[in-house]
Amino acid sequence: MEKKGIKVVTIGGGSSYTPELVEGFIKRYDSLPLRELWLVDIEEGKEKLEIVGNLAKRMVEKAGLPIEIHLTLDRREALKGADFVTTQLRVGLLKARALDESIPLKYGVIGQETNGPGGLFKGLRTIPVILDITKDMAELCPDAWLINFTNPAGMVTEAVLRYGHIKKVIGLCNVPIGMEMGVAKAFGVDHSRVRIDFAGLNHMVFGLNVYVDGENVTKKCIDMLANGEGGNDPKNIKSIAWEKEFIKALGILPCPYHRYYFKKSEMLEEEMEALKKEGTRAEVVQRVEAELFELYKDPNLAVKPPQLEKRGGAYYSDAAVRLIDSIYNDRRDIQPVNTRNNGAIKGIPDDSAVEVSCVITKDGPKPLNIGELPVAVNGLVQSIKSFERVAVEAAVTGDYNTALLAMTINPLVQSDTVGKKILDEMLEAHKEYLPQFFKKEQ
Amino acid sequence: MEKKGIKVVTIGGGSSYTPELVEGFIKRYDSLPLRELWLVDIEEGKEKLEIVGNLAKRMVEKAGLPIEIHLTLDRREALKGADFVTTQLRVGLLKARALDESIPLKYGVIGQETNGPGGLFKGLRTIPVILDITKDMAELCPDAWLINFTNPAGMVTEAVLRYGHIKKVIGLCNVPIGMEMGVAKAFGVDHSRVRIDFAGLNHMVFGLNVYVDGENVTKKCIDMLANGEGGNDPKNIKSIAWEKEFIKALGILPCPYHRYYFKKSEMLEEEMEALKKEGTRAEVVQRVEAELFELYKDPNLAVKPPQLEKRGGAYYSDAAVRLIDSIYNDRRDIQPVNTRNNGAIKGIPDDSAVEVSCVITKDGPKPLNIGELPVAVNGLVQSIKSFERVAVEAAVTGDYNTALLAMTINPLVQSDTVGKKILDEMLEAHKEYLPQFFKKEQ
Amino acid sequence: MEKKGIKVVTIGGGSSYTPELVEGFIKRYDSLPLRELWLVDIEEGKEKLEIVGNLAKRMVEKAGLPIEIHLTLDRREALKGADFVTTQLRVGLLKARALDESIPLKYGVIGQETNGPGGLFKGLRTIPVILDITKDMAELCPDAWLINFTNPAGMVTEAVLRYGHIKKVIGLCNVPIGMEMGVAKAFGVDHSRVRIDFAGLNHMVFGLNVYVDGENVTKKCIDMLANGEGGNDPKNIKSIAWEKEFIKALGILPCPYHRYYFKKSEMLEEEMEALKKEGTRAEVVQRVEAELFELYKDPNLAVKPPQLEKRGGAYYSDAAVRLIDSIYNDRRDIQPVNTRNNGAIKGIPDDSAVEVSCVITKDGPKPLNIGELPVAVNGLVQSIKSFERVAVEAAVTGDYNTALLAMTINPLVQSDTVGKKILDEMLEAHKEYLPQFFKKEQ
Amino acid sequence: MEKKGIKVVTIGGGSSYTPELVEGFIKRYDSLPLRELWLVDIEEGKEKLEIVGNLAKRMVEKAGLPIEIHLTLDRREALKGADFVTTQLRVGLLKARALDESIPLKYGVIGQETNGPGGLFKGLRTIPVILDITKDMAELCPDAWLINFTNPAGMVTEAVLRYGHIKKVIGLCNVPIGMEMGVAKAFGVDHSRVRIDFAGLNHMVFGLNVYVDGENVTKKCIDMLANGEGGNDPKNIKSIAWEKEFIKALGILPCPYHRYYFKKSEMLEEEMEALKKEGTRAEVVQRVEAELFELYKDPNLAVKPPQLEKRGGAYYSDAAVRLIDSIYNDRRDIQPVNTRNNGAIKGIPDDSAVEVSCVITKDGPKPLNIGELPVAVNGLVQSIKSFERVAVEAAVTGDYNTALLAMTINPLVQSDTVGKKILDEMLEAHKEYLPQFFKKEQ
Ligand SMILES: [Mn+2]
Ligand SMILES: [Mn+2]
Ligand SMILES: [Mn+2]
Ligand SMILES: [Mn+2]
Repeated sequence: MEKKGIKVVTIGGGSSYTPELVEGFIKRYDSLPLRELWLVDIEEGKEKLEIVGNLAKRMVEKAGLPIEIHLTLDRREALKGADFVTTQLRVGLLKARALDESIPLKYGVIGQETNGPGGLFKGLRTIPVILDITKDMAELCPDAWLINFTNPAGMVTEAVLRYGHIKKVIGLCNVPIGMEMGVAKAFGVDHSRVRIDFAGLNHMVFGLNVYVDGENVTKKCIDMLANGEGGNDPKNIKSIAWEKEFIKALGILPCPYHRYYFKKSEMLEEEMEALKKEGTRAEVVQRVEAELFELYKDPNLAVKPPQLEKRGGAYYSDAAVRLIDSIYNDRRDIQPVNTRNNGAIKGIPDDSAVEVSCVITKDGPKPLNIGELPVAVNGLVQSIKSFERVAVEAAVTGDYNTALLAMTINPLVQSDTVGKKILDEMLEAHKEYLPQFFKKEQ
Repeated sequence: MEKKGIKVVTIGGGSSYTPELVEGFIKRYDSLPLRELWLVDIEEGKEKLEIVGNLAKRMVEKAGLPIEIHLTLDRREALKGADFVTTQLRVGLLKARALDESIPLKYGVIGQETNGPGGLFKGLRTIPVILDITKDMAELCPDAWLINFTNPAGMVTEAVLRYGHIKKVIGLCNVPIGMEMGVAKAFGVDHSRVRIDFAGLNHMVFGLNVYVDGENVTKKCIDMLANGEGGNDPKNIKSIAWEKEFIKALGILPCPYHRYYFKKSEMLEEEMEALKKEGTRAEVVQRVEAELFELYKDPNLAVKPPQLEKRGGAYYSDAAVRLIDSIYNDRRDIQPVNTRNNGAIKGIPDDSAVEVSCVITKDGPKPLNIGELPVAVNGLVQSIKSFERVAVEAAVTGDYNTALLAMTINPLVQSDTVGKKILDEMLEAHKEYLPQFFKKEQ
Repeated sequence: MEKKGIKVVTIGGGSSYTPELVEGFIKRYDSLPLRELWLVDIEEGKEKLEIVGNLAKRMVEKAGLPIEIHLTLDRREALKGADFVTTQLRVGLLKARALDESIPLKYGVIGQETNGPGGLFKGLRTIPVILDITKDMAELCPDAWLINFTNPAGMVTEAVLRYGHIKKVIGLCNVPIGMEMGVAKAFGVDHSRVRIDFAGLNHMVFGLNVYVDGENVTKKCIDMLANGEGGNDPKNIKSIAWEKEFIKALGILPCPYHRYYFKKSEMLEEEMEALKKEGTRAEVVQRVEAELFELYKDPNLAVKPPQLEKRGGAYYSDAAVRLIDSIYNDRRDIQPVNTRNNGAIKGIPDDSAVEVSCVITKDGPKPLNIGELPVAVNGLVQSIKSFERVAVEAAVTGDYNTALLAMTINPLVQSDTVGKKILDEMLEAHKEYLPQFFKKEQ
Repeated sequence: MEKKGIKVVTIGGGSSYTPELVEGFIKRYDSLPLRELWLVDIEEGKEKLEIVGNLAKRMVEKAGLPIEIHLTLDRREALKGADFVTTQLRVGLLKARALDESIPLKYGVIGQETNGPGGLFKGLRTIPVILDITKDMAELCPDAWLINFTNPAGMVTEAVLRYGHIKKVIGLCNVPIGMEMGVAKAFGVDHSRVRIDFAGLNHMVFGLNVYVDGENVTKKCIDMLANGEGGNDPKNIKSIAWEKEFIKALGILPCPYHRYYFKKSEMLEEEMEALKKEGTRAEVVQRVEAELFELYKDPNLAVKPPQLEKRGGAYYSDAAVRLIDSIYNDRRDIQPVNTRNNGAIKGIPDDSAVEVSCVITKDGPKPLNIGELPVAVNGLVQSIKSFERVAVEAAVTGDYNTALLAMTINPLVQSDTVGKKILDEMLEAHKEYLPQFFKKEQ
């Protein structure tokens, strides 16, 4: 007999985000009966897994729900018969991220841990691990959905679509939901009354149309942005205002990460200064995390502590549990996720990952048709897609030249010579997590 | 009765390049019977027109050919019944180019007089003039071909395809023929034995495959480039070597202008130094031109003086006369030109201009089908196409915001704030040539 | 001040279908506050308009709702300030349809009043009238939605998209909802639990995937069809069973009209016999209509009489009112409608009409992305699209040769000589409704 | 050391066409130095191979050329080190063709041995054999070009592109060259002065533009056709005139085979009558062939006998040797061949075979870019492509249901029930040549 309720496996379960996820499952328990939540981590993360896992147990106990929390280092054991697998792992931990952000800065280049040179290296470290997970899934839970939160989420989804051993993958990011929340706040309405036609790539997504109660308010939104209002930037990106005339000509809603491409000099300067003052964003996060884990240890804590908000991942839990709920219940509501393009955005290959508004069904996300991207942004989106695709090739093959190609064509780099310097220093720095680049040397 | 031979009108006929063109017509006279060559210029260029026109007359006289040379300031008079119209005009002359190149540099941005911020302004000045010429052509010589040499040739062709009053337009550049010559030299063979599958945009064109006697020698070419051999860079672009691993991973032949995007920091540094040492490239050219016109005045000179080679426009005449000859004689040979895409390169709009290998027929260029561009370069090509299209919109509408949008999305700029500073200074500097941006203010 | 509630204008309001529409509005009044319903007809339809209009008035009175029913022959008066305009007109009435169906049969060709030669003539008569309505709408109610029920709905939608004076048009058909109902019945579930991914053209639509409660049951559906179960054919199409092996290889749900293309010989034979026995379908319908209007006259009748079901237009009202309700309330539910393709179905022009599952919003229908149609049906769908496009050209230009081209490329005709005979006889027969073809002769 | 001259292998070398091929090689010997011609056939064709092979030997001897003629039944022996492999085989010989043509006629359906039900069966018999040849080629002559003449040439090329073991395949047909010859004759000019932009599929190809000396004479051609002049129909297709108004609206040059789709009833009637009078075309050809082989036996005959012209394959030899010559010499001239689409014709998959004007290079054919097909013919072309693709699936899988699907969607069939009857009778009739459909039954 089929067991009632669903089994969710969270890989990288020892993450400081986990309490938010647990809170999300608790809130939606009525429609989404979670039977088992398996938190999986690796040996090095054992201690954190224990801390966060025990907090999770106290949370479900306090909520009075029959959800089993399992903590394990045995990924394959956890995956057996799973319905949903979420990945929020971080190969090399925040130490690696600090290097991703700081090494490029030495050469006058923004690190950008998702679409920049930092993101390239995060991809090179992460993609082989995720592909390996899909291999296990194909064997142990072939009908499960992989919900990937791990950055660079676009590149990782691209890699799974092209090289993964399963087909059911969705990449998830909190940026679009943050943009919706920003609009809701600016218009003083509830989130449910806002709809945005999202299209683009992960961390490179645009709101093509913005609706409140079905009325198209895009122009009003842009005017607000032009007046420095209405933004809702995440904690991790400095909110430098757009030039009024630029944003009006753009005419669509950029995401916070677009500042790296439309305000590159200002962002570089900002990051240089921040590095001097407070270290990389990774180092800031490391300090926040240390504090969080101190809090989590408190045996009297049985709810998500409010301090987690500072961590920067606002709405992640909401986005994740909302998505799982809509799949499980075939809700057919509209959510922005990373999925196979299949022609939804003209000019991007069918097989590539895009971030786009989708109807969420039991059979997975069905993209709304977008057609052509606005002329002015098509080029940039294509540039990042080119970068992502070459980066995936480099991650899968471990080929040095391909990695240099990816680095050079990145819009934040644009120099083979500078790119090579960054590449060489980063390869060396991350050596232990990049076996595919080094095994060949022997 | 139809008059025998063809009538060619050269707008901007007072250019220092004209003797090369004349030489080209003389050489091909047997297959291309030129009856009349009309050199047209504007009041400010009258003196140069006289000098170069008289040289042209001496050249045809010496060759003993019945070619009539007409010098005129009356464009409409010249256009009547023309078979081919070539445009090599320069709105604002070299003084404007000097500003195009030097103002951006003040803000740490390469000027790049074709695809960069300089090119944007050259486009803003030039496009209205060219569109005006097409209006006259539609009336006075509706069956004539417009062969446009004027930079930015890609943007100008795009503008004529979308807003022109005629359909028969071809954009021409000497970069591809220069690349062919480079390969011919490197392999020690005659130019006629080399074929390259060209695809991309003007000054953003790639050699996808290189053949010598039909054998695919692309890999060999790339290896030569990796070893610093085989290049054939024009006079106006500093020939900085590619990183070996980068060019190998790229795997296709870049054009010299690609250095602005794949070696951006190095080119910026180089231009900064050159500016200090010798002024802008425009200033260098101005000095060369002054010398050339001194030579042209010599009443004993009746051939193209060898010093013209230094000017930088090698092969232009050859490219232009070869093209006209192939159209006139329906030669069906393969030449790279700028023409309507119509699906030849996947992912670029049908109506947009591309630079691509074409079969040249009496009915115009017929592009060879290309399919998808290699992943690694698709993004950059699309970026420049986005830039060109927004720039054309700005040129046609005279809209400030649109101009700022074009400036900001240019891969050499990438900042709305820096872009705005450059834009404002350049608008002011070029004010007299940009009526579409200023008439509204009144 | 804006008046509360919405104004709907129904052109062809004297149709026997109208009571169903009125019933639909009454049922949904709570969410869709209908303020005014204007029934518009032409002089020849005046009597029917009176009869059906009075029934409508009795219906709303009985329901106790403050809906104003207006009867008028003045279309422009009616259109002023409308929110929704529905068209259910029939140029030439059922008499014309009888000719559409019977003339081709004389030449051994199925008439098929929508996608066949009959449909061509229905289009030639109808398209100029509908385009004229859009002209009035652009002037009198520019923000209104045109909901077109008039057949051939695909061709009419194509015509409005390409030549109409408004952008907000939706073509509506009861075939897809009938297919959903058929699945619901076969699986013994409520309609709301069924979802079908529809894609194709009007009367040429396929169910690519069938879901019940989100589970993909497509294979099960096909197996039912292979066993002769599960169909839900409309009254007007003879339900001849599919060859088991054919339907299994097809693998997707055909619509009832596909029998004309996949069982052409059988349908032809069937229509020939029916013609002998009972006259054309049009004649059958005429008899049913006469009876209906007799019933409608009864001053004691204040509900839709059950005999209307026999008429063949099951679910039309439901489809129409459901659609208007979802637009008005921004419901974002999924409904199959005819709308601009914009890349949703690969290989069909962006500007063409397709019938496809859409999310229905206040801003109109947003197609779900479909990608490529299955190989086996792409050809047929493209054939009908070619036919529709050439037919629209003929309707707009009144060009004889173009009409012959449309006739000849229709998959039911396939002969220029036979096509010409049918064309000539039909042009003559419908002369009074085809001014665009005859005014030139004078 | 590499041997001088080229080695050509002709599979189905015992064909009555071979003398034409030999004549072609003799004529072009100066530019195309043929060293060895291997004529390969199967046991059943041994006698014919001897006859035709001996004639070939006498022909080269008479021409005084050092061409070796080899006759063999050992295909693998022949293929070793080949430069070009041509296939002109006929699985089941003309007896099978007679069945292909006559069985469908029993059910009122045109057999059409290439794109019709007959073509389906020719494909089912032939494709496995050709795929097997590509397997041998991949092993024994991996650099050779496969030039396939075997019908259905479009379907066979599609099969090799999708399932073959080599990439270098070209499908060749004499229909386009026949159309060029027809235009040349009608205009009274030499073939070399005619150029046609061909696009479509094999036996479904259109001349989109027709040029004489580079002048576009398409309209003049169409007018000639409208007046019943200018055609150049092959021997095997009855030349029934087009309706004047139809051909004018079509506006492009159809190929002779288009009569099966645009004059279907007339062609059916014609074939029915011909069958009664003279048997199938296959039977006519059988009689002609018998006579030819009698002639070939004559030891005094050392040239191609003029009677071969009657056989119907005019220009085949010219097309084939011209193609091989252009590849060998990297001529870069334009020829229509069947090759991978790769985006040349919009809306047809990249991987599919199309018949299109190509520049012929040593690296193979490079299609000219076509863009969209004219609306009126796109549907029919897509229908045949759908048919070809499903037919290839059936040939490769041997799946009965897929074969029925292919049969039913063929525009000449359009009925699953009639299609099933034809399919069943033909499967039985061709049983010995269709092992893939029968081995599973055991
Ligand atoms: Mn994210
Ligand atoms: Mn140039
Ligand atoms: Mn309908
Ligand atoms: Mn053929």
